Amino acid sequence: MNYRIILKIVGRVAGIEAVFMLLPTAVALHYRESVKGFLISIGIAVALLLVSALFTRKGENRFYAKEGFTSVALSWLVISLIGAVPFVIEGAIPNFANAFFETVSGFTTTGSTIIKDIEVLGRGILFWRSLTHWIGGMGILVFMMAVVPMSEEYSMYIMRAEVPGLEAGKLTAKIQHSSLILYVIYIFITLAEVIALIICKLPVYDAVVHAFGTAGTGGFSIKNASVGAYGSPAVETVIAVFMMLFGINFNLYFFLILGKFKSVFKNEELRCYLGIIAFATLTIALNIKHIYGNFSDALRHAFFQVNSFASTTGFATADFDRWPTYSKMMMFLLMLMGACACSTAGGLKMSRIMILIKTVVVEIKHMLHPHSFNPVRLENKTVSKEILRGTLVYFSIVIIAVSLGSLLISLEGHDLVTTVSSVATCISNVGPGFSDVGPTCNFSFFSAPSKILLSMYMLMGRLEMFPIIILLYPSTWKKKGQF
Amino acid sequence: MNYRIILKIVGRVAGIEAVFMLLPTAVALHYRESVKGFLISIGIAVALLLVSALFTRKGENRFYAKEGFTSVALSWLVISLIGAVPFVIEGAIPNFANAFFETVSGFTTTGSTIIKDIEVLGRGILFWRSLTHWIGGMGILVFMMAVVPMSEEYSMYIMRAEVPGLEAGKLTAKIQHSSLILYVIYIFITLAEVIALIICKLPVYDAVVHAFGTAGTGGFSIKNASVGAYGSPAVETVIAVFMMLFGINFNLYFFLILGKFKSVFKNEELRCYLGIIAFATLTIALNIKHIYGNFSDALRHAFFQVNSFASTTGFATADFDRWPTYSKMMMFLLMLMGACACSTAGGLKMSRIMILIKTVVVEIKHMLHPHSFNPVRLENKTVSKEILRGTLVYFSIVIIAVSLGSLLISLEGHDLVTTVSSVATCISNVGPGFSDVGPTCNFSFFSAPSKILLSMYMLMGRLEMFPIIILLYPSTWKKKGQF
Repeated sequence: MNYRIILKIVGRVAGIEAVFMLLPTAVALHYRESVKGFLISIGIAVALLLVSALFTRKGENRFYAKEGFTSVALSWLVISLIGAVPFVIEGAIPNFANAFFETVSGFTTTGSTIIKDIEVLGRGILFWRSLTHWIGGMGILVFMMAVVPMSEEYSMYIMRAEVPGLEAGKLTAKIQHSSLILYVIYIFITLAEVIALIICKLPVYDAVVHAFGTAGTGGFSIKNASVGAYGSPAVETVIAVFMMLFGINFNLYFFLILGKFKSVFKNEELRCYLGIIAFATLTIALNIKHIYGNFSDALRHAFFQVNSFASTTGFATADFDRWPTYSKMMMFLLMLMGACACSTAGGLKMSRIMILIKTVVVEIKHMLHPHSFNPVRLENKTVSKEILRGTLVYFSIVIIAVSLGSLLISLEGHDLVTTVSSVATCISNVGPGFSDVGPTCNFSFFSAPSKILLSMYMLMGRLEMFPIIILLYPSTWKKKGQF
Repeated sequence: MNYRIILKIVGRVAGIEAVFMLLPTAVALHYRESVKGFLISIGIAVALLLVSALFTRKGENRFYAKEGFTSVALSWLVISLIGAVPFVIEGAIPNFANAFFETVSGFTTTGSTIIKDIEVLGRGILFWRSLTHWIGGMGILVFMMAVVPMSEEYSMYIMRAEVPGLEAGKLTAKIQHSSLILYVIYIFITLAEVIALIICKLPVYDAVVHAFGTAGTGGFSIKNASVGAYGSPAVETVIAVFMMLFGINFNLYFFLILGKFKSVFKNEELRCYLGIIAFATLTIALNIKHIYGNFSDALRHAFFQVNSFASTTGFATADFDRWPTYSKMMMFLLMLMGACACSTAGGLKMSRIMILIKTVVVEIKHMLHPHSFNPVRLENKTVSKEILRGTLVYFSIVIIAVSLGSLLISLEGHDLVTTVSSVATCISNVGPGFSDVGPTCNFSFFSAPSKILLSMYMLMGRLEMFPIIILLYPSTWKKKGQF
């Protein structure tokens, strides 16, 4: 293991976090709130950067997948630890385990909260809380690669570990350019949402923090009743549409800019994603119509909640825990499926689900006609054996992880729906679950070990399992040849 | 598609069912009950046999996997339809959809019931109800192959479709011999249980029907409170031990007879199965100790219920729906996992779970050291690529099927735990679930379409998905070359 390069990357990432933290500091100063927590946090991050710079000036350049995975996993752990400091020092979340949970939930764009009353907190701290979503959505290492020149070799491994999806999408020949393009698109759509929300008469501060929550598909709100608190159909619709947009593969936006409309229109994953959203919205609207008295209100709530779950954002406009079983079951499945690859959404991702189903169909055809073997095709390309196996293994890991996690959380003794949905919502980076972790509840009642376990599940979900598993896998830390 | 050979097989299977039905007829005569239902049912079966014999005297011999799968699936549907007739005619279950559900539940060794008061029914009809478990456990087509000589080629495809596990176990060079050996072992262990239960002072009739329920890992009882009704720790322990025994790969019993003790002792799947049972029993006993006041009672109930779920039998000695969440979560996972391959148990099977976990470990090692690639090994053999892919695909199909089934059943509007556990218990062939389908409840409240859906899920579980999927797959019925 090349420790030097890992320390170097973790240090740089901490430095970038310090820069990002200047934003909430400015907001806190603007509203004349305490900035002590931010300054201490920035101090820690800068210290880490200096130490890493000091110790890593020379060293070997060995950098393989192992180093890529561990440096990404460690970076995410470190930014969460540093990011939790302001919550503790400013007294927003006095307990460090709670603050760590909240920060991991922020960076992983989960949006599960342990805060009972959000509205009493300072504006600076709430700005930071929502900003973690925005940073985590596209990925802090992708940002680092966009602004700090790095060797292509390093970048490829990091990109693979941090960007969700089957293959790290290289939009251009150089990864630095690809990262930059992704971030420019990200900033542009976020800005569009801020403007749309301001037009809907939301105060600028509220518009910005909710745009952060939408862009990262996170789901932290600054209201106890989430987006529903505004009671504005216009605001709800704007946020619902943007949740849907942030669940789409960002490469497609790049194609739009390049004028390749045909390849966007023909994208199988996009069609499948929009098709599922349409089907779920319509059937849920019919299922909840009797609650809202008329179809249009039911449709609005269904459209919002379906997009909130499919994009794994987790905002709420209604107490969907009281909806009929079909609606809840559908939302539970949307939660696990997630949206498109290379978006800011969590879950299994639509393309993986499509590959799974296509593989099953191919297997059945193969059984019927043993001499024929049709390859699995997606987006007009044959899916390679490696990706096929990887997808099946990934699916298995997620199901095994949800099972084991539910077994551990079940020791707490909450009901089965709370137990399973809390694990599923964390690993899918959604936020709320059902029953005791429903939209009107929070995660504060879990014990500290459970909160740490759920935090690890959020990180596993955001980084797509392997970086965290490899970080915790004993043979990773053995010397070469010792596995 | 070779329709003649399929009709021939289905006819023979119906004939064998008619022979089996002579047993409950004799029991009914002994207790001076009506035998009208059985006679009509036998008449239908014999008529089908004659028709099939008449139409299939000549014909081509083409018989491939397609014919194997469809003939097995159709045979199971037909014996369930014929087997439901006595329930309807004798008035035990007047509604045919209900009677079909109950019969499928019997043959698939699920043990879910729609009967509210079992104890008022006749002894002949209850004998038939339990006998379906025994017939379904080892498989009616395996029985057919043991008694009716058939071409090796046909047999292999049928064996593959009906016997659970990764590969159809050929114990000897000839399949007819293998089938015979399997049935001899099956009869022997069933007899051993009958004798053990009689020693525990159970009436002979009760001993026989409960041995049928245990042997097939079915779970139908003749008491409303299941095995718990006898209030006898001795009976409970005997049944628990036999449930465990019937969950073991039958090939191992053959090895025991041959004196190959070492290969039994070294069997990885067996060790894993017994290890999981021990772990689950101990932890559940600790989890429920406060309910029963002392550890020994808790241990007895835990041992019984763990074996009941792991072997997918579904007998109950306690209202486990009131146990703490950890116990329920553990039992839910045991239900999905099931016991060993080539046993009478349902679920995913232990060897599949082991292959899944080993595949995940190999994948992680491969990521850490991209140039190394260790094959997955089970029972000292390298697992072939086909079996690996098959296992991953099978796991995916089960999870997708449980998800889709839960979505459809959720339209009924029962709570989420009822919805998901009813589908899971049916596809795993366990019997009871949790909440409204818990051990003190039954499946009578479901609508007719849901009962038929759940029946199909039981068949999918018992025949390991593919035969039923292929039966319903449109291209199966297209002419050659048209897919």
